[in-house]
Amino acid sequence: MPTYLLAINCGSSSIKAKLYEVPADKAEPLADVASLNVSNINAKGEKVKIKVVWAEGVDGKDVDEEGEDGDKVEHLHLIPLLLDQLSPVVKNEDIKYVTHRIVHGGTHKKGIMVTKDHTEDLTDMDKLSDFAPLHNHHAVLAVRSCLDALPDHKSLLLFDTLFHQTIPVETYTYALPPSPIDQPMPLRKYGFHGLSYASIVDSLAKHLNKEPSAINVVVAHLGSGASACCIRNGKSIDTSMGLTPLEGLIGGTRCGTIDPTAIFHHTPDAAADSGMEGMKVTNAEMIMNKKSGLQALAGTTNFGTITERMGDSDEARLAYNVFLDRLLGYVSQYLCKLLATTKDIDGIVFSGGIGEKSQQLRADVLEHFAWMGVTVKAGGDGVVEEIANGKLRGWVVKTDEEGWCARLARDDFDI
Amino acid sequence: MPTYLLAINCGSSSIKAKLYEVPADKAEPLADVASLNVSNINAKGEKVKIKVVWAEGVDGKDVDEEGEDGDKVEHLHLIPLLLDQLSPVVKNEDIKYVTHRIVHGGTHKKGIMVTKDHTEDLTDMDKLSDFAPLHNHHAVLAVRSCLDALPDHKSLLLFDTLFHQTIPVETYTYALPPSPIDQPMPLRKYGFHGLSYASIVDSLAKHLNKEPSAINVVVAHLGSGASACCIRNGKSIDTSMGLTPLEGLIGGTRCGTIDPTAIFHHTPDAAADSGMEGMKVTNAEMIMNKKSGLQALAGTTNFGTITERMGDSDEARLAYNVFLDRLLGYVSQYLCKLLATTKDIDGIVFSGGIGEKSQQLRADVLEHFAWMGVTVKAGGDGVVEEIANGKLRGWVVKTDEEGWCARLARDDFDI
Repeated sequence: MPTYLLAINCGSSSIKAKLYEVPADKAEPLADVASLNVSNINAKGEKVKIKVVWAEGVDGKDVDEEGEDGDKVEHLHLIPLLLDQLSPVVKNEDIKYVTHRIVHGGTHKKGIMVTKDHTEDLTDMDKLSDFAPLHNHHAVLAVRSCLDALPDHKSLLLFDTLFHQTIPVETYTYALPPSPIDQPMPLRKYGFHGLSYASIVDSLAKHLNKEPSAINVVVAHLGSGASACCIRNGKSIDTSMGLTPLEGLIGGTRCGTIDPTAIFHHTPDAAADSGMEGMKVTNAEMIMNKKSGLQALAGTTNFGTITERMGDSDEARLAYNVFLDRLLGYVSQYLCKLLATTKDIDGIVFSGGIGEKSQQLRADVLEHFAWMGVTVKAGGDGVVEEIANGKLRGWVVKTDEEGWCARLARDDFDI
Repeated sequence: MPTYLLAINCGSSSIKAKLYEVPADKAEPLADVASLNVSNINAKGEKVKIKVVWAEGVDGKDVDEEGEDGDKVEHLHLIPLLLDQLSPVVKNEDIKYVTHRIVHGGTHKKGIMVTKDHTEDLTDMDKLSDFAPLHNHHAVLAVRSCLDALPDHKSLLLFDTLFHQTIPVETYTYALPPSPIDQPMPLRKYGFHGLSYASIVDSLAKHLNKEPSAINVVVAHLGSGASACCIRNGKSIDTSMGLTPLEGLIGGTRCGTIDPTAIFHHTPDAAADSGMEGMKVTNAEMIMNKKSGLQALAGTTNFGTITERMGDSDEARLAYNVFLDRLLGYVSQYLCKLLATTKDIDGIVFSGGIGEKSQQLRADVLEHFAWMGVTVKAGGDGVVEEIANGKLRGWVVKTDEEGWCARLARDDFDI
């Protein structure tokens, strides 16, 4: 009887999942069985898209369909729907392991295992939902949803914050006085997208035939949530997101870094509760996380649409230029941080939906550093593609958060 | 009968003033008469220091004395005190012109003149006090104080925001939706310390025997309030402060850029009024502007003390390192912004109390860019001193905001 591992990744606007068969021999790699993707969750004016692709040789029927309006579906109800898609091929009881990407892990130094009988940590995790309002609570609901639906499995929670534990204290410290309120964790920079960054370092190291610990690179993970990371010797030493995923670059609906007092002038009753179910989120946090960013500047979160409209629309051009300006700022800082201690830099990596697709954005970023010596060229469609060379190299690397979670799980579950 | 111009500069912790005699011949430069300095205003555990220095050949008595406890004096009462210091030598009625450095000028494109009979603009100015709570209201009180005390003069309000009008829209735009509240000005980055930056560009241009419009430089104005500015062709194209002086670097009591949601987790009733007299300032803004920064990390706002204590005190070392980390971030961004369009860079300029005094900070910043080719050396005590050369040069430039205000005033008053 085969054993399966399901890696689930609840993003702010998508759920991705990959199903792997776990080989009896520990030395063998996991075998791909299926990949599932629900996108456009919460996207106004777009239909939810559901996609299931079975691996070659697996007897399943691929699905590619549209569902309800994006802003009318809830993460929670999508997990049973995804499991239904798998059930013709894989019995629920054969899924023995599930990994969940969780955005905020606070100060947790490693993943957390939960089972039907041990869900205390899950309750603790949900306390951090206030700090990642687009994410943690959805993910916690997804874990509960799996614990209900899959009769006999172990869930492993893996945090985006884990990869950033190596950020030095002078970088993660905010110059604030002690808080008068009891806090579930210190108020400092944590950083996110860590599972993606770890997967990218791994892929790039393989491509360059180096150890991951020899990788020095600036990575821009640009999706509906966007961040940049400075990676020295394979470890994060700085990143643009902060206490929450809001800080740093602008996102689909996030304003990113702004004057921290701006929102008090902008939003009436900024600190009043916004009435979001299951967590304490202020009006200010709702506005800055859900009503800002590309959506506020261009009326759409779709970066492709923005790039297409740039010729005619002042709003689209402004949105693109603001996104680029902030991105150049972080990439510049991080390149200088690397160059301060080493000449051996592997370059700039673009990843995430925008990073993989927008050739124009990549070219505009790389040309900003033309003075360092960089020649932009076209890349192909591999996991790692060189798109610029010279003194400074550029790359597109396809991130694989689910694959990385599955790999971490094999160590933690000892499978 | 001689005519005088008094240039007043109300900072967050100091009042500086310079008295000039206005020559009858417009082509002649203004003649220095006296310089006045009140420091340590609001500084806990320090006495206010009052210093008056008369120019050579002027028959006045220099003053160098300590006053009350720093946290017990008010800006308002210090203006009559300063005028009293001048009265043995200069008659109040001979002071015909006063310039005031005002931090926030909103969208004003030039200075504003006010007289006893025309103070409407002053009322408008005070509406912006909410956006610069450590400054504008004090300065407006100082203007009123002068209008009361000096029987027949014109006051010219000169704004720190003026110099940053050239920042491009993609850099000054915050990705926020429209505010539902009526605003006295758009919510965007404005930038501050502009009179200082303009004075520095002027001094450096003279020293290099160039036109100001040929200056390409990154300037760090580091005082109790600290900011950095990217100057291309003599004009500001980016700066670290934002809608208010809070954004960007950490300051003596300011937290600088942090996750914009952090304060909602940190401070109870974040958006409630803090009860500050004469303006609407929330608890959050008070904490972030007055209780944070070096004070919160090291228990003192004195950078010299922090540097001295670094060997023994973890707190002092952390405060120094956080200050340095953020500064390196902005200097890196701005150097890359310049290098993206020109090879002809005049270097990095340090100014303000910390910038002029802390040799260690300057060396640490310059060494971060050693890879560009930079050799640090000792500077002297002139207005402009070269402290590093090679491909990238370093400078200490003494800023002269009062002198710059007086110069602007000669054009505006036609004197």
